[in-house]
Amino acid sequence: MARVITAGERDECASHGLFRLPGCVQTIQSGKMSLDAEPVITDVSPALVRADAKLAYSLLAFERAAPLLARKAKTVGVAALAINNCFHFSALWPEIEHLTDMGVAALAMTPSHAWVAPAGGHKGLLGTNPIAFGWPRPGPHPYVFDFATSAIARGDMALHDIADKPIPDGWGIDADGRPTNSARAALDGAMLTFGGHKGSALSTMIELMAGPLIGDLTSRESMAFDDGARAAPMHGELILAFDPAIMGGGDVEAQAARAEALFAGFSAQGARLPSERRYAARARSLAHGVRTPQVLYDRILALGA
Amino acid sequence: MARVITAGERDECASHGLFRLPGCVQTIQSGKMSLDAEPVITDVSPALVRADAKLAYSLLAFERAAPLLARKAKTVGVAALAINNCFHFSALWPEIEHLTDMGVAALAMTPSHAWVAPAGGHKGLLGTNPIAFGWPRPGPHPYVFDFATSAIARGDMALHDIADKPIPDGWGIDADGRPTNSARAALDGAMLTFGGHKGSALSTMIELMAGPLIGDLTSRESMAFDDGARAAPMHGELILAFDPAIMGGGDVEAQAARAEALFAGFSAQGARLPSERRYAARARSLAHGVRTPQVLYDRILALGA
Repeated sequence: MARVITAGERDECASHGLFRLPGCVQTIQSGKMSLDAEPVITDVSPALVRADAKLAYSLLAFERAAPLLARKAKTVGVAALAINNCFHFSALWPEIEHLTDMGVAALAMTPSHAWVAPAGGHKGLLGTNPIAFGWPRPGPHPYVFDFATSAIARGDMALHDIADKPIPDGWGIDADGRPTNSARAALDGAMLTFGGHKGSALSTMIELMAGPLIGDLTSRESMAFDDGARAAPMHGELILAFDPAIMGGGDVEAQAARAEALFAGFSAQGARLPSERRYAARARSLAHGVRTPQVLYDRILALGA
Repeated sequence: MARVITAGERDECASHGLFRLPGCVQTIQSGKMSLDAEPVITDVSPALVRADAKLAYSLLAFERAAPLLARKAKTVGVAALAINNCFHFSALWPEIEHLTDMGVAALAMTPSHAWVAPAGGHKGLLGTNPIAFGWPRPGPHPYVFDFATSAIARGDMALHDIADKPIPDGWGIDADGRPTNSARAALDGAMLTFGGHKGSALSTMIELMAGPLIGDLTSRESMAFDDGARAAPMHGELILAFDPAIMGGGDVEAQAARAEALFAGFSAQGARLPSERRYAARARSLAHGVRTPQVLYDRILALGA
């Protein structure tokens, strides 16, 4: 957990850095989570690892199971890691980078809490359901994206509420299902998915793949489990890993060159790759350290009191 | 091919029904495709099937390899089918339904031609890159979605051009990279992805997974291969299959019930599931037959001349 929070702060992903610590403590204090669970890793098949987090955070379960996941992918081409019964507070990109560092492409997804209305609906049913993907590249940084399938992250919606700042069209609807520009009204009503019915379909796929498919909770069930405790969501996570050598039939250099030509097509027209801003922040932090707002620092110190 | 075109017409997916026949003939006449290739199916690993279409259409390769894909998924939990060197003209949902009929969940994706600019860019680089997903359900119809990651399908853009109808904001940019409401200008410039930078990231993932990962072409390379012949795109396709029993650890009925509860959450708030309109059209067509515009019928008859 310390490694992932440090990585978030280092990459200037403020919402997944030290900002998360108070929430972690709140989750611990909810009494719903296990503080000393050892994840149970099961080697289910040549293509499937299961990691039962036993009601602890997802990260230790992931870290313990990741080498076996990568090994399986490198043996049969594609493999899945199903993490069950885990509390979730972290971004997905640290896990993706962990896997691309081992030379495999990776796709991860989780449900969350039922804050998001499906396209054509007017009430929370889907989670903010993040999806992240990574492709290993020569050089220091992989291609990585990690985004919520809601129009905006829950935390950003809350920040708009605190600042009493209007939200753009398309972020949320009020409790009566009407479009709203009030973050407060949307938090009491429902958030919307990104990209209309397509984003809603993708979010539904994430509910199914990282929920029922792996024998774990949907966002609505996770919210019912929480029962107002305001702990981190408790559910499953699905991570797929792909080995380019086996999937592609052998000429790994040609495959890598083909991917690099695609990335070059972005820079040639001045388009940024998804994680470039994060990698620039990382370089800054490694050179100059990080700065934390005094108010957050004080809040964290107070947690130990 | 006849089965898939008939299914498109039956489901009132006009753009993937008989409307495609003239394009199929044009692809055949381009001289680039093989008319008598037998797909070569390779059992690569416990989790991977490769189907080399040998420059024919993708459909026969898919049909021959699908039973082995499903069998692998039912043995190890997750399995992949990499189709290589295939011409592609069909929607993905017929393949998804073929797999859900065998009791597995499925995810399919392909590149196309480099008509779509990435977020922050101004020139075609990505394909319209469709993604489709299916979940087997009790009852006659699976949960299925199938959408282009471009803001709109290429065919719809062309229809707006023919009808001289303005296109909404967000569909395309002109050759100078400026937003346009002219379909003609967007066809000469570039299409945009759905959902801004998130849709652009997803489209890039599809380029990588159904291209370099499986040792096949990106949309830009497929377009270069076509070299102005206006044949169907020639590239690869990636299809993943998941067995709920193995992925979920055994209680398949509980998993199905959990998914059904999610779907019930849609109907409870009046939201439609992605394929409902298509299934209603199917019922109509099965009861009353299909009607084809005279102009298309005449055009098809003329193909034989």
